Amino acid sequence: MEAGILLPPPTSSSPLSPPTSSVILTQDELKKIAAYKAVEYVESGMVLGLGTGSTAKHAVDRIGELLKQGKLQNIVGIPTSKMTHEQALSLGIPLSDLDSHPVLDLAIDGADEVDPHLNLVKGRGGSLLREKMVEGACKKFVCIVDESKLVKHLGGSGLAMPVEIVPFCWKFTAKKLQDLFEYAGCVGKLRTYVENGKPFVTDNGNYIVDLYFQKDMGDLKAASDAILQLPGVVEHGMFLDMATTVIVAGELGITVKNK
Amino acid sequence: MEAGILLPPPTSSSPLSPPTSSVILTQDELKKIAAYKAVEYVESGMVLGLGTGSTAKHAVDRIGELLKQGKLQNIVGIPTSKMTHEQALSLGIPLSDLDSHPVLDLAIDGADEVDPHLNLVKGRGGSLLREKMVEGACKKFVCIVDESKLVKHLGGSGLAMPVEIVPFCWKFTAKKLQDLFEYAGCVGKLRTYVENGKPFVTDNGNYIVDLYFQKDMGDLKAASDAILQLPGVVEHGMFLDMATTVIVAGELGITVKNK
Repeated sequence: MEAGILLPPPTSSSPLSPPTSSVILTQDELKKIAAYKAVEYVESGMVLGLGTGSTAKHAVDRIGELLKQGKLQNIVGIPTSKMTHEQALSLGIPLSDLDSHPVLDLAIDGADEVDPHLNLVKGRGGSLLREKMVEGACKKFVCIVDESKLVKHLGGSGLAMPVEIVPFCWKFTAKKLQDLFEYAGCVGKLRTYVENGKPFVTDNGNYIVDLYFQKDMGDLKAASDAILQLPGVVEHGMFLDMATTVIVAGELGITVKNK
Repeated sequence: MEAGILLPPPTSSSPLSPPTSSVILTQDELKKIAAYKAVEYVESGMVLGLGTGSTAKHAVDRIGELLKQGKLQNIVGIPTSKMTHEQALSLGIPLSDLDSHPVLDLAIDGADEVDPHLNLVKGRGGSLLREKMVEGACKKFVCIVDESKLVKHLGGSGLAMPVEIVPFCWKFTAKKLQDLFEYAGCVGKLRTYVENGKPFVTDNGNYIVDLYFQKDMGDLKAASDAILQLPGVVEHGMFLDMATTVIVAGELGITVKNK
């Protein structure tokens, strides 16, 4: 199901037009539009999964704002990363965890890729495991993206599909992952910090191998199972059949896609 | 395929019999018999997976002994735990890792349960992840047990089937695991240190939830996939279709079962 909710149509850009009608929205502004739209789904009394990343950050900010204004009340937030935990704390959003709230009403989070079936790639920010735990426990999961994140098939952006692995013999596991998708021209690279070249470490003390695909990996369920069956793998960044709604912000307006 | 290699038949125990003919073998002696038998599979020049636990310890000791005697040469050992690493070092066994040797000739390790199809439960010692990585990379995996480890179906001993999970929201994951096998009367318990009640921590910095089954869990492949699909799970202790040989030491002799 897909519904287009149009913003005011963009006028042709001209030096004479007033600034408000000649806007070309930045990617960050599109993210903010999607995030604000998602927060319309939030109701007082909800237990909320709070996403991680540049798009989700806008949603968390907005929730904090509505709480301060008294327009939302009795919200409990479950953050998906240490970073979001800090952000939510600073905004005064009451926080808890999955142990105390094993069922959530709603989660709002961004994604790195969205395919036509609302399957996602997430985790370029490194929080895939906690995100998957929290968002897998939600009745509704609203995913918010700008239109650059839409792909024909997962991996299709040519950017990373992250896999969280244990540090023990990571080269062995990285090679196994790459071999698994040899047919799709897969290359696996250990994620490192730009500053010092050391391995990036997740909130759970693990490493991340980013997989880059040249071709469609095909059956996503089979790919997911094969990855999870490798002993060194903790979790991967494909979120299959999890998003219930995807909100896409583009130059021409907001599109809401529902499962 | 099953082959019985008989020890000398035990004679009836009597106070008058000489000690050597009245032996009732202890469980540890049975373990040692199985271990020594397994080491007969080792040849000079092999890259060897070295198991963890009370049975595997005997095999590692024996390999060290044969190396010292010059009966084995050019062995490279890949230990499955920090504990075995220390043991092998002290015996002078040259060591390496999976990153340098992604394919092993042979692994020898114990198990906590063995079913009639040579599927195993392992990891009561806490090293399931590294054991699965190493033993999954072996051309041959010889499993050594005393006869008390034979079960009709995995979980059938009523003892623990361990699952390694991330510490983050472990209660949530433990509950999910237990719910998965509600039909089999499953109870999940966090493994703790007896001394102080604190959570047992694996070599990889994770926790272990021990699952106890009242009934047969049924389709093992389906059970394995369902466990691995839970985001907080790192690995489980069922080793399906991995052992190529199981050596069972019992009061009546040694039985060698091959795939």
